[in-house]
Amino acid sequence: MSAARADRVQAELRKRELDALLVTHLVNIRWLTGFTGTNGVAVVGADGSRTFLTDFRYVERAEAEVDGFDRRRGGRELLGDAAKELTGRIGFEDHHLAVRTWERLKEAVPEGVEVVAAGSLLEDLRAVKEDAELEAVRAAARLADDVARAVVLEPGLAGRTEREVARALERELRERDAEPSFPPIVAAGEHGALPHAEPRDVQIPADTLVVVDWGAQVDGYCSDCTRTFATGQISDGAREVYELVERAQAAALDAVAPGASCKAVDAVARTLIGDAGHGDHFGHGLGHGVGLEVHEEPRLTANADGDLVAGNIVTVEPGVYLAGEVGVRIEDLVVVTGDGHEVLSGLPKGLTEV
Amino acid sequence: MSAARADRVQAELRKRELDALLVTHLVNIRWLTGFTGTNGVAVVGADGSRTFLTDFRYVERAEAEVDGFDRRRGGRELLGDAAKELTGRIGFEDHHLAVRTWERLKEAVPEGVEVVAAGSLLEDLRAVKEDAELEAVRAAARLADDVARAVVLEPGLAGRTEREVARALERELRERDAEPSFPPIVAAGEHGALPHAEPRDVQIPADTLVVVDWGAQVDGYCSDCTRTFATGQISDGAREVYELVERAQAAALDAVAPGASCKAVDAVARTLIGDAGHGDHFGHGLGHGVGLEVHEEPRLTANADGDLVAGNIVTVEPGVYLAGEVGVRIEDLVVVTGDGHEVLSGLPKGLTEV
Repeated sequence: MSAARADRVQAELRKRELDALLVTHLVNIRWLTGFTGTNGVAVVGADGSRTFLTDFRYVERAEAEVDGFDRRRGGRELLGDAAKELTGRIGFEDHHLAVRTWERLKEAVPEGVEVVAAGSLLEDLRAVKEDAELEAVRAAARLADDVARAVVLEPGLAGRTEREVARALERELRERDAEPSFPPIVAAGEHGALPHAEPRDVQIPADTLVVVDWGAQVDGYCSDCTRTFATGQISDGAREVYELVERAQAAALDAVAPGASCKAVDAVARTLIGDAGHGDHFGHGLGHGVGLEVHEEPRLTANADGDLVAGNIVTVEPGVYLAGEVGVRIEDLVVVTGDGHEVLSGLPKGLTEV
Repeated sequence: MSAARADRVQAELRKRELDALLVTHLVNIRWLTGFTGTNGVAVVGADGSRTFLTDFRYVERAEAEVDGFDRRRGGRELLGDAAKELTGRIGFEDHHLAVRTWERLKEAVPEGVEVVAAGSLLEDLRAVKEDAELEAVRAAARLADDVARAVVLEPGLAGRTEREVARALERELRERDAEPSFPPIVAAGEHGALPHAEPRDVQIPADTLVVVDWGAQVDGYCSDCTRTFATGQISDGAREVYELVERAQAAALDAVAPGASCKAVDAVARTLIGDAGHGDHFGHGLGHGVGLEVHEEPRLTANADGDLVAGNIVTVEPGVYLAGEVGVRIEDLVVVTGDGHEVLSGLPKGLTEV
């Protein structure tokens, strides 16, 4: 697996006329090598060389996890150890590497080595998932659905506090050998109008809308889903907002296909919500990539560059937030397939009373 | 609280002839302002000005958490918004800020502004705790002790898997409204010889040593403690190693006092272990600072600079690791007081059978 990924990096290096890429960001190291420890450096050469360094603490773990790389044990300064052997034109992860570390790197490389910004080379490769990665995210999404059925749909929400429900989601994810991919959001009534509400020690009342946003991380891969549930009869106004978001979500989902531009997919939902007079109440992007990180490439926003390609996994999550009144967000996790898309989120999207 | 901390930063700025410090690292922002969100920028001026920027998602949270700062709502690029208003000689956190972000910062500041590396200015201040911080770490240590009594000492270890025990520690910490300050280590027999062992799905046998390393995080502040327990009769060799580490730990602890050099405290344990022929089997530093992060300043290592001062909180954790045989580590969390030290870890250190 990691060999195929290093091959993709190697091809990219040739395109960019780089002799090697120095990988220091841990999520990228995990994707590239399989290594799950907290200290490592990988170097992929355009000539096919592949080196992985870690310190004494992780030597055994690297043996178990890292295949297809020349594994070395480094000292306290892994980057310095890696730097000494570099030659030519070397890309580094300028969007992650700290300024001070970069200064040290430049001092540590041999005379004549050129250190150049390689940007999000690996993030761009990571955005196109392999089959095994698709399966991992599918599994995380299924597990997250099951947890929500057990914790939200079956017992219901009214009378429990937001915090109790959020804690129960986390606990149930962990009972099933997953981790929360982010701290769950459970936000009732007007609190749902904060897109990143913190769960409160406040009872969820009957007859209101409740935004629940949660995800599972399984074997490193994340899921992300939002549903807005009703705890009984809701006002006509709240129902109208719900149905608007539901329509916008369905329309944007329809637009998800290979070749669709990221900003055009965002625009489908944004136009629909704007035409209904709620343009100012949808203050975030339509969606984002999901994989080893719960927010990664590509982004579905009004000023995103690029087009969707098969193998992308993105969220489609429009929302309408009326301050002091109510919030609605509906979010699916979606794979871009060869000829359209596959929705990974399994819970119903019609207004559900719990 | 945050006002007093900003005062300390201001005094440091004057010493370094900086007009302002631009704070971008989240843990430092939390320490300085109280803000617990995931996007913020703080600017402390040598002239007494204090500005805090966050985005629309965290405006309400900032109102609740951030006192003594001029709070502003920024756009998508908080750093750019902050940069526009800078004047003079500005310190930035070069050990955290990514190269690409730094390039953007330099473009965004007005003509004539000088952007200079400020290093670990805030980390050095954070290393000297206030009374409220000492109390927070004490509370985390007490809670962690209670959890170990309930999860390890009372039920015992033999017959349970390492992973079960580690999961139970995490679960019990969360039941008590804490978080693990790091993933607990539970490592039996020869597995204990890996200083950063991952808990395995392997039953802990009788008559062996088990390294248990765990900590609680409460209101942001961490604890860190290690005990090595016996699950019955152990070999004379294992007992000898245990008693050596116990002596080294006690001797190093005795050396913890204001004015003691960090490397001298490390040397106390290292010499004792070296004299017993195990110098090569103690492959890590004696200890590290603990606070909002579980690893922070100061470091107690063989090549550490500086002296301990009152208000430091450090671990004292010598270990001896015999590959393929056994590992022993004993770790206390210790406050440097005005005239010596105060141990925060409450569990016994004599060989304890569980």
